[in-house]
Amino acid sequence: MDISQLGEFGLIDKLTEDLKPANKTTVYGVGDDAAVLEYGNRCTLVTTDMLMEGVHFDLTYVPLKHLGYKSAIVNISDIYAMNGKPEQMTLSIALSKRFSVEDMQEFYDGVRLACSRHGVDLVGGDTTSSLTGLAISITCIGSANKEDIVYRNGAHNTDLICVSGNLGAAYMGLQLLEREKSVYYSTEHSDNEPFSPDFAGKEYLLERQLKPEARGDVLEELRKAGIRPTSMMDISDGLSSELLHICKQSGCGCAIYEERIPVDYQTAVMAEEFNMNVFTCALNGGEDYELLFTVPLTDFEKVSQIKDVKVIGHITNADQGHVLITKDGQQFDLKAQGWQSNLDK
Amino acid sequence: MDISQLGEFGLIDKLTEDLKPANKTTVYGVGDDAAVLEYGNRCTLVTTDMLMEGVHFDLTYVPLKHLGYKSAIVNISDIYAMNGKPEQMTLSIALSKRFSVEDMQEFYDGVRLACSRHGVDLVGGDTTSSLTGLAISITCIGSANKEDIVYRNGAHNTDLICVSGNLGAAYMGLQLLEREKSVYYSTEHSDNEPFSPDFAGKEYLLERQLKPEARGDVLEELRKAGIRPTSMMDISDGLSSELLHICKQSGCGCAIYEERIPVDYQTAVMAEEFNMNVFTCALNGGEDYELLFTVPLTDFEKVSQIKDVKVIGHITNADQGHVLITKDGQQFDLKAQGWQSNLDK
Repeated sequence: MDISQLGEFGLIDKLTEDLKPANKTTVYGVGDDAAVLEYGNRCTLVTTDMLMEGVHFDLTYVPLKHLGYKSAIVNISDIYAMNGKPEQMTLSIALSKRFSVEDMQEFYDGVRLACSRHGVDLVGGDTTSSLTGLAISITCIGSANKEDIVYRNGAHNTDLICVSGNLGAAYMGLQLLEREKSVYYSTEHSDNEPFSPDFAGKEYLLERQLKPEARGDVLEELRKAGIRPTSMMDISDGLSSELLHICKQSGCGCAIYEERIPVDYQTAVMAEEFNMNVFTCALNGGEDYELLFTVPLTDFEKVSQIKDVKVIGHITNADQGHVLITKDGQQFDLKAQGWQSNLDK
Repeated sequence: MDISQLGEFGLIDKLTEDLKPANKTTVYGVGDDAAVLEYGNRCTLVTTDMLMEGVHFDLTYVPLKHLGYKSAIVNISDIYAMNGKPEQMTLSIALSKRFSVEDMQEFYDGVRLACSRHGVDLVGGDTTSSLTGLAISITCIGSANKEDIVYRNGAHNTDLICVSGNLGAAYMGLQLLEREKSVYYSTEHSDNEPFSPDFAGKEYLLERQLKPEARGDVLEELRKAGIRPTSMMDISDGLSSELLHICKQSGCGCAIYEERIPVDYQTAVMAEEFNMNVFTCALNGGEDYELLFTVPLTDFEKVSQIKDVKVIGHITNADQGHVLITKDGQQFDLKAQGWQSNLDK
C-alpha cells in the first residue's frame, strides 16, 4: 500500500496500534506532544522530532544558526504543550561531506542559544554522516508534577478554546522566502549587482518563520492567573488540524469564530499581496508554535485578561461537529488541511 | 575546516565543550553511553542513535525487519552499558517514496520484537519524509538506582578488563555480505538460475551482523555473582577504540593479551578465507554489541566462573600506555583504528 493513502497520522496509527506498556514507569505513550514517564513524584516528559533537508528546511535561505535554534524550539515547544518544564535535550545530526566544522559550530550555536534561553541542558546525541543532505533528530526531556500535566484529551463541552500570540505569520514568511528564492533563480545577477531580496517591512514574518519562539511565558501567565488548561497542544501543523486532534482525543466538537482568530497586521498585508485569504493562512499555515488550549468556561474573566491570549470559540458536544463561523454568520466544517504540503512531497 | 580533520569524536568534543548543566535533574551529560537524569531516588538514562541508509545499512542485503530489530538493539545496548534497565523508546523515521506501508510495518515488527524481548515500551516518535533513502533515529530511556550506574570513568590500576561473548563476528558477517553482493553485481543471473549467495556454514556470522543481541543477560550474571563493574561500555566501534575511551576517561593505561581475546571458530575460519588477521578483526571490527567492562582484581575468582565472560587483561597506570601483548610476548601500542570505514565515507 502506498503511504500517501494513509497519510502521516494514519501510518503512525497503524504502526503503533496495540502498544501495551510493560513498565510501570510508562504513564502515557504515543498520541500526545510528549510521552510521560513517572519516577517518584515527578514525571518525565519525552518528545522527539526529525528534520530532513529539502523536506523541512531549505538551506538556500535558512542560515544554519537559525536552523539550530528552530530545531531546538520545535521540541522545547512540545514539552511546554504538556505544561512541563523542558530540562534536557539530545541532538543527533547526520551530515554530508559539504558541511564543514564551522558550519556545524554555527548550527550548534543556534541550538545552544535556544537551550540557554529555555534553561535546557544538552546531554547527548549522535554525530554521523549522510550520503546526501543534512538530517537532524532532537529529543527533548522535561519534567512536571503528575497532576499538572495537560493532555490533548481533557477538553469538555462549554470549555473555551484559546490561542496564544497570532497565527499564519510563519506560513506567510515561508511564502515570502519561497518567492524571493524563485526570483533569485529566474533573474540574472552578477557580482557587481548582487541580488537583494525584497524583505522591507516584512521582517516580522521572516522572524516567525526562521526563528520561532516556544511559549513558556504563556504557561507562566496561566499559572499566575490560577488557570489550569483542560487540554493543550502546540500549533505546528496549523490551527484546524490541531484543534481536530484535541476534539478527536477528547471526544467532543468545537465552534470557532473566524474574526476572533488572531492575525498580525503584516500577515494580513502579505496575504493580500499574495491574493490569499488571510484566515485560510491562519487556520492552515503551520509552524507558528503558538499554544492552543482549552479552559473551563468559569475562567473566562481570568483568561480574557492575559494580554497575549485570545478566546476564539468553545468546545461543543461531539454531535455538533467541528464548525468555523464566519463574520457573516455562515458555518463551515473545519478541515484538517494542515500543513501537509511539505510532508507529502 | 574539513570535518574529517577532526573525526567524529573530535567534532563532538568541539561542539559540546563548555556545556554546563542548568538543571539539578541533569547528573551526567555528554560523554558516556547514555546521559543520566535524576528524579527522586531513581535515575533516568537517555541514549540516542541515528542510522542513515547507505552509511549504516545497505538495504540490498538487510531485511527491514532485521534493520528494525538491530536499530532498537543498538540503543538498548547503550542502556545496559550503564548497568541500567531499558524501559522506553522513541523512534523517528524519515522515508522516501519508494517505501510502502508494508515495508514500514515490517521495520516496526523488528523494532517491536526487540522491545518486547527486552521489556521496552515504544512511547513516541516522529514519522516524516525524506528526499532520498531511509533515516532512523532512536532514543532509548532506561532507569537505574544512582549507586548502581556504571560510567566509563571508574577503571582503576590493577582492575581486570573483561569482555562478554566473542568479538569480530559481526565484522566478518559484514565482509561476507559485501562479498556476496559484489558477486551478485558482477555475474549474470536470470530468473531460471536465480542467484544464491554462498552462506553455508556461516549463518552465525550473518546473525551477528544482521541480528545482534544486547547483553542484558550478562548484567544479570554479574549481579548474581555480586560483582559491580568499575567501568563499562558496549563494543560498537571495536574493542581497541572502546578500551581507549575507558582509559582516557578513567585516566589510566591498559594491557591486554591477544590470545585471550574471545573469537568464535567461524570468525577464525572466515578471516583465514579472507586472508585477514583474526585478532585485527576482533580488535577493530565493530557492531558486536558485547560488553567491555572492568572489575576489581579481587573479583577474579567470581568473574572467571561466569560462562560467557572472559578476562583479557588489566588496567595499568597511565604512564604505562595502552599495550597489546601478542602470543610471543611482543608488545604493541593499541590504536583506535575503530570502525571508521563507514563513518568516513
